[in-house]
Amino acid sequence: MLPVPRSVTWGAGEFELDAATGLSVGEGLDGVAHWLRGELGPALGCWLSPAGTGRTIALALDPGLPPSGYLLVVTRDGITLLGGDPAGVFHGAQTLRQLLPPASYRRAPVADGPCRVPAVTVRDAPRYRWRGCMLDVARHFMPRADVLRFIDLLAAHKLNVLHLHLTDDQGWRFPVERYPLLTEVGGWRAESMVGSRQHARTDGRPHGGHYTADDIREIVAYAAARFVTVVPEIDLPGHTQAAVAAYPWLAPGHGPVGVRTGWGLSPVGIDLTEETLAFCRDVLDEVCALFPGEYIGIGGDECPPGQPLADRRRFVRALVEHLAGHGRRAYAWDEILEGGAPRGVIVAAWRGPGVTRAAAGAGHDVVACPDLSTYLDYRQSEHPDEPVPVGTVLTVDDVYAFDPAALAPDHPERILGAQCNVWTEHMPGTRAVDYMVFPRLCALAEVVWSAGGRADFRDRLAEHLPRLAAMGVEYRPESGPLPWQRRPDAPGWPRARADRESELDALTRGI
Amino acid sequence: MLPVPRSVTWGAGEFELDAATGLSVGEGLDGVAHWLRGELGPALGCWLSPAGTGRTIALALDPGLPPSGYLLVVTRDGITLLGGDPAGVFHGAQTLRQLLPPASYRRAPVADGPCRVPAVTVRDAPRYRWRGCMLDVARHFMPRADVLRFIDLLAAHKLNVLHLHLTDDQGWRFPVERYPLLTEVGGWRAESMVGSRQHARTDGRPHGGHYTADDIREIVAYAAARFVTVVPEIDLPGHTQAAVAAYPWLAPGHGPVGVRTGWGLSPVGIDLTEETLAFCRDVLDEVCALFPGEYIGIGGDECPPGQPLADRRRFVRALVEHLAGHGRRAYAWDEILEGGAPRGVIVAAWRGPGVTRAAAGAGHDVVACPDLSTYLDYRQSEHPDEPVPVGTVLTVDDVYAFDPAALAPDHPERILGAQCNVWTEHMPGTRAVDYMVFPRLCALAEVVWSAGGRADFRDRLAEHLPRLAAMGVEYRPESGPLPWQRRPDAPGWPRARADRESELDALTRGI
Repeated sequence: MLPVPRSVTWGAGEFELDAATGLSVGEGLDGVAHWLRGELGPALGCWLSPAGTGRTIALALDPGLPPSGYLLVVTRDGITLLGGDPAGVFHGAQTLRQLLPPASYRRAPVADGPCRVPAVTVRDAPRYRWRGCMLDVARHFMPRADVLRFIDLLAAHKLNVLHLHLTDDQGWRFPVERYPLLTEVGGWRAESMVGSRQHARTDGRPHGGHYTADDIREIVAYAAARFVTVVPEIDLPGHTQAAVAAYPWLAPGHGPVGVRTGWGLSPVGIDLTEETLAFCRDVLDEVCALFPGEYIGIGGDECPPGQPLADRRRFVRALVEHLAGHGRRAYAWDEILEGGAPRGVIVAAWRGPGVTRAAAGAGHDVVACPDLSTYLDYRQSEHPDEPVPVGTVLTVDDVYAFDPAALAPDHPERILGAQCNVWTEHMPGTRAVDYMVFPRLCALAEVVWSAGGRADFRDRLAEHLPRLAAMGVEYRPESGPLPWQRRPDAPGWPRARADRESELDALTRGI
Repeated sequence: MLPVPRSVTWGAGEFELDAATGLSVGEGLDGVAHWLRGELGPALGCWLSPAGTGRTIALALDPGLPPSGYLLVVTRDGITLLGGDPAGVFHGAQTLRQLLPPASYRRAPVADGPCRVPAVTVRDAPRYRWRGCMLDVARHFMPRADVLRFIDLLAAHKLNVLHLHLTDDQGWRFPVERYPLLTEVGGWRAESMVGSRQHARTDGRPHGGHYTADDIREIVAYAAARFVTVVPEIDLPGHTQAAVAAYPWLAPGHGPVGVRTGWGLSPVGIDLTEETLAFCRDVLDEVCALFPGEYIGIGGDECPPGQPLADRRRFVRALVEHLAGHGRRAYAWDEILEGGAPRGVIVAAWRGPGVTRAAAGAGHDVVACPDLSTYLDYRQSEHPDEPVPVGTVLTVDDVYAFDPAALAPDHPERILGAQCNVWTEHMPGTRAVDYMVFPRLCALAEVVWSAGGRADFRDRLAEHLPRLAAMGVEYRPESGPLPWQRRPDAPGWPRARADRESELDALTRGI
């Protein structure tokens, strides 16, 4: 099982799951039951009708269990799945699925006959409440169907936060009724770079796309049915060249600019004025209308040079307060700590242990996502055949060795959890995302649900790969990229760890 | 409704579909019921339990109705859906869905409250029994999840054949246990052309992928649950450079060759010997083991020059007989008519009315797919912004004007139906496929299910586009490509209709 549960006790015999197996559904669990039927029915032909004529799977709540925790008992005669809440039952159902053959992850049956589940008792609960993944749909747009598939993959690994990076210099994907040009103009760029920016190679091919309000509602509802919260991010006030391309008055000093075609930090961002603040508030109003979750990402990172820190702090503080007026909490990158962050802000600490400690020490809730441990755009080995090798080497084992608690040992209560970050400059589509994200995300999932450091992780990962294959995930093979997963056309820019570490030190010295 | 039903009589009032609506399932219809629940439940929150406490949707068979036909009666008090067979009930359920708001095509609810279905009586049955689409997964591999989505899109349009072009010079996607190098070596190429072959531009980027046996089983079963038959095609003996790359002994005279990177006809194909025939039989044995359908595609088209016609005819005849030994019928492109085709072969007539008449006149069952009316890689307008404009102009209206019956007026009984063909040289992924296939496929669907020539087609298509959008289809807007749907980097090669017609005449003169 992956992530590994807290306690697993194997029993004797097997439960036989077949077309006659029934499902008994406790109060408040209709949603989980519908999801389970929708997954196992098409895959196994087990439709789990309420009036099953055979043995039964019973779902129920048990308030004695911890939130998101569950107790799964499989015997020859039946399966009982109790959860501390509906999320707990859902996570238990994902564990149950891992006790079935990998084919249970397919969308139509590939074999006949009953499925056997070994008798077992599993007690489980998560280590962290924020078990996330950031997906950058700005650098490369991801069509909705692929986003929904990605949510399924997160949920299968018991992750519960999809941080959706919806806007950046290279594209604006979030629909704003009041400012339609944000997507019409800001939603596409004339071309993209091929490989890392140092090589300045371009493809001459437009790229774009955006979501509609109904698309967002569907993504949010689809995720909610899988106990995944979507945390949207509108990156402000930096990383806004796409917005300036749509509405040049946001930064009149720059003259007309297009949506950024190159990677890397843009020198163009919105001015920090009352007018642009009103614009940002309008945008966030529409964000709050479409995303019901408590947390709203506002970026706050990497502003263009030349903007005084005091102005930036004032601007960001106003955004945080505006969100508070909506009853929401702002989520921002750790740059927000520069000069002191507004109270109540949740910090995505991406620049190492120092900022994590600083954020926790200053009383902020923190989501740990240090680039050296969780940036899934970083290369997976030293091999030059890795597709678009950028950043430092980050292997599956490196991700697995990551311990969020070690980053702020004096303030463990401030660590909400961790997330991996999928920046998509070099992932033009879902196939490339699959290669970069899996199986490293599996390691992160165990870190945040269970904790790393289990000697049997590699064995369990080997058992897990057929599940990924059944889900159609084109993960990176242990031996390196398959021939067609290479990108000789797209040169990278590998970094050495020491080099990056000293750069991070310099960047965060002032915090 | 699209395709338009045979008869539609509107009634008074509306049926209200909500969480309490029940589903009564007649014998033999469990599969359709599961599918309907799986579609409407997540989209609308209507889970259609057998023991619904509200009004009911009743599914049943009525042997008095024609095969694949249905009678759908919606009143204020209930919905009755009768089918001549389970396929008929399924098609009726697709019609029912078109009576619901477009949001019923989403995968999670985007609005609250009940859904209303207007009272109506619909009587319907298909015009043709072969309502198909060929998808070329050889020129560009399509990941399994996207194939399943494509099957859903076919089924939503009441198409019932997915002709899967699994092998070609540029890639071999079908797993053959006995010859694993077919996919290992033949399943990827070193790079691809960008734009049409006349420009000889290449991208330096490997491309590949293939299906596993379980992937094929899943695709077949998924399609079957939607009453879509998958007709596999292994293109033989021409279009086999990828096979020769994997097993050079198939054409020793050519020396070692790689998988073809350029578009266009390869000069390399397997030799026509007893040894290569045995190889082809082995491959077809595995095809027959994985695809249970009656029809197996063997290509038979565009052999490399220099192979004597008599040899080719003998070779193809042996393949046809081998399939007959498996109880299957061979399906082949109309080149098989050259010199006379073996009895019982079904002909995919792609080179115009002449070959269609010739095939039907010679007693062959024919699937009409004339390139000038059904090749969805052909450009959709005269505008130079059309992405990779190749072939002749083929608009939605042109597809809609296509009448398979007019191609062989003396032998209408020989026309099994028609299909559109999606050659993917210039469609590197699903987003590009969406643009080229929709909404032209909608027009083809009405041609084969109903018949073209309805004055209200355009109005119904306008009502249909929001359904496509809800399904996440990035169809071509009536006004032309969105900015990011253009491909200025990939020059095309537009043809004039007269030019292509005279070429077709020359090609088919001997038949």
